[in-house]
Amino acid sequence: MRTIDIEDLNDLAVGATVLGTGGGGDPYVGRLMAAEAIRAHGPVTLIDPEELDPDALVLPVGMMGAPTVMVEKLPGGVELSIATEALETHLGERATAVMATEAGGINSTLAIIVAVQRGIPLVDADLVGRAFPELQMCTPTLYGTMACPMALADDKGNTSILQAVTNRWAEQLARTMTIEMGCWSLIALYPLRGRQVAIECVQRTPSTLMAIGAASRQAHAEHRDPIDAICEVTGGIRLWQGKVVDVARKTAGGFARGEVRITALDGDDVLTIGFQNEFLVAVAGDEVLATTPDLISMLDLETGEPITTEGLRYGHRVAVIGIPGDERWRSDAGLEIVGPAYFGYDIPYVPLEERRRKRELVEVA
Amino acid sequence: MRTIDIEDLNDLAVGATVLGTGGGGDPYVGRLMAAEAIRAHGPVTLIDPEELDPDALVLPVGMMGAPTVMVEKLPGGVELSIATEALETHLGERATAVMATEAGGINSTLAIIVAVQRGIPLVDADLVGRAFPELQMCTPTLYGTMACPMALADDKGNTSILQAVTNRWAEQLARTMTIEMGCWSLIALYPLRGRQVAIECVQRTPSTLMAIGAASRQAHAEHRDPIDAICEVTGGIRLWQGKVVDVARKTAGGFARGEVRITALDGDDVLTIGFQNEFLVAVAGDEVLATTPDLISMLDLETGEPITTEGLRYGHRVAVIGIPGDERWRSDAGLEIVGPAYFGYDIPYVPLEERRRKRELVEVA
Repeated sequence: MRTIDIEDLNDLAVGATVLGTGGGGDPYVGRLMAAEAIRAHGPVTLIDPEELDPDALVLPVGMMGAPTVMVEKLPGGVELSIATEALETHLGERATAVMATEAGGINSTLAIIVAVQRGIPLVDADLVGRAFPELQMCTPTLYGTMACPMALADDKGNTSILQAVTNRWAEQLARTMTIEMGCWSLIALYPLRGRQVAIECVQRTPSTLMAIGAASRQAHAEHRDPIDAICEVTGGIRLWQGKVVDVARKTAGGFARGEVRITALDGDDVLTIGFQNEFLVAVAGDEVLATTPDLISMLDLETGEPITTEGLRYGHRVAVIGIPGDERWRSDAGLEIVGPAYFGYDIPYVPLEERRRKRELVEVA
Repeated sequence: MRTIDIEDLNDLAVGATVLGTGGGGDPYVGRLMAAEAIRAHGPVTLIDPEELDPDALVLPVGMMGAPTVMVEKLPGGVELSIATEALETHLGERATAVMATEAGGINSTLAIIVAVQRGIPLVDADLVGRAFPELQMCTPTLYGTMACPMALADDKGNTSILQAVTNRWAEQLARTMTIEMGCWSLIALYPLRGRQVAIECVQRTPSTLMAIGAASRQAHAEHRDPIDAICEVTGGIRLWQGKVVDVARKTAGGFARGEVRITALDGDDVLTIGFQNEFLVAVAGDEVLATTPDLISMLDLETGEPITTEGLRYGHRVAVIGIPGDERWRSDAGLEIVGPAYFGYDIPYVPLEERRRKRELVEVA
């Protein structure tokens, strides 16, 4: 039986920032909260999707809204369970296990807290395999599974059960309620049966996050480049390295939208990365290097430490890496939900590896 | 056993527009919908609060948001029951009877439709005794009774169950969700037991509405002044008569706010009525004639027909009448929720009749 203990949380947070692709909030705050919960209740048991009873009720739990606002006033331990309990009451059934809603950012750790408080296991999977900004952007949507009934809770004790007709409507109604609740809410959604988890979810997510963090840590210890180590464990590709020269950011519709420009270390070329919470497209001149749903992550060039959009600042020397997204996101159905066009970019999706192969062919020719 | 049949609906709609004090939407549209429902299912049984079993579950049902938007796309018959059913499912109990949420406007008729569709009685009472713009402005609030759990439903099939910590929070969260749902929603809230209804609610509301309409109708038939007849049955006082010369209106925060100015028929004096959906304060020069929670209603000077804020137009010759509000709204606790100060008017509340007595003393002196 595997567990996640306090000493694993640092690795997990590093991995969550890499797969957070700039968004999802700073997992280091979530790490502190998870550490406190584990100190009080003991480590969390990590359970494989295959180990679940087919009829087990699994509740993905996390937060919605602006993590930056949330961390100004951290939710108390008990508050985190309120959404879970409201959904359990509505369903008339207790959860067998909980799961992180997404792999990236603060949502990688919140489910751990609920699990240890409730004394139930955390499933080694998640709904996204990275961070994405909207709640219909979860792999169960591709199987026709509903986000609702979903529960929302705030820090004042208000709760709401939503029963929306589509996952897009769930996003829209939950988003507006979240803003009214004070810009963040705790949520439990996509109630799943054990048999669904192994099929519809992205597998081994917490394990992958810890493996990313461990690889980086070991590289440091052995004086190897941690960026190489992260690329090895994630299948990542180096896209760019350079200096941040411009960050344009505005908050619109509850999202942080903007662009970051990075000059090459060797020459005048500029990489432009567009983001909406998460980094979504990376373009150098007229050449697209990578787009959503493939992951675009930024790492400190010296330390290999991953960087969130909030952490971006002028002069920062960074490496940009691309990581292949889950195969389901690369399907036509997946691209309809999370492809570049959905986010308003007039760029066709081409897998990261293919774009690279073409560049290499051009360079050879 | 009393019933409300199709031929009663016109009287009821007239009464609902008088007690709607300009707001609550046009009850004539609700009347058409109720007539269709009664034609299909038969008349609705009207039950006195005292006739209710003390443990009976009574659900007040109505709409929230902009009636003007609602009437552009009328909800189908079935949609009206969705909020009621969602709340019943949440409570695990079927309603014995339904009740109108407020006396004024379209909400006077929507509960009738649900009652006849479900084959259950309508309680002869309501939560306000007039129309007010926010959902915490209901007499049960004065008894510490919660608006939640409440259900919201839209025309697309989305529903939500809210469990807010205060009735003010219920208003805030339901309002924002209603706007997102398309500016109106159907709601079921303040679930009450039979024993509460006779104590916490405003009594005999549908009966009063029909009595107002009947009085006006009979006055017409007997060539008496319908405005006098309406004043007799409501305890109303004539405040002003004149010509509408200006209507300033803006829609802000989901409400129609504004001011209407009425010149006196005999002289240069001007009455200014401030409204937020409902008419809230009536001031002539430096003299306040009436304020919320007393009712300020506008009637066509020739026909006695009541006028909503949407129906206001330049040159309209009108009579303005004041009607004493429910005694509970006139208490300190009531005034805190619905007094002039709550709506941003720096005017102390003085009962309508007292203000009039003072005017008469001045005139005599």
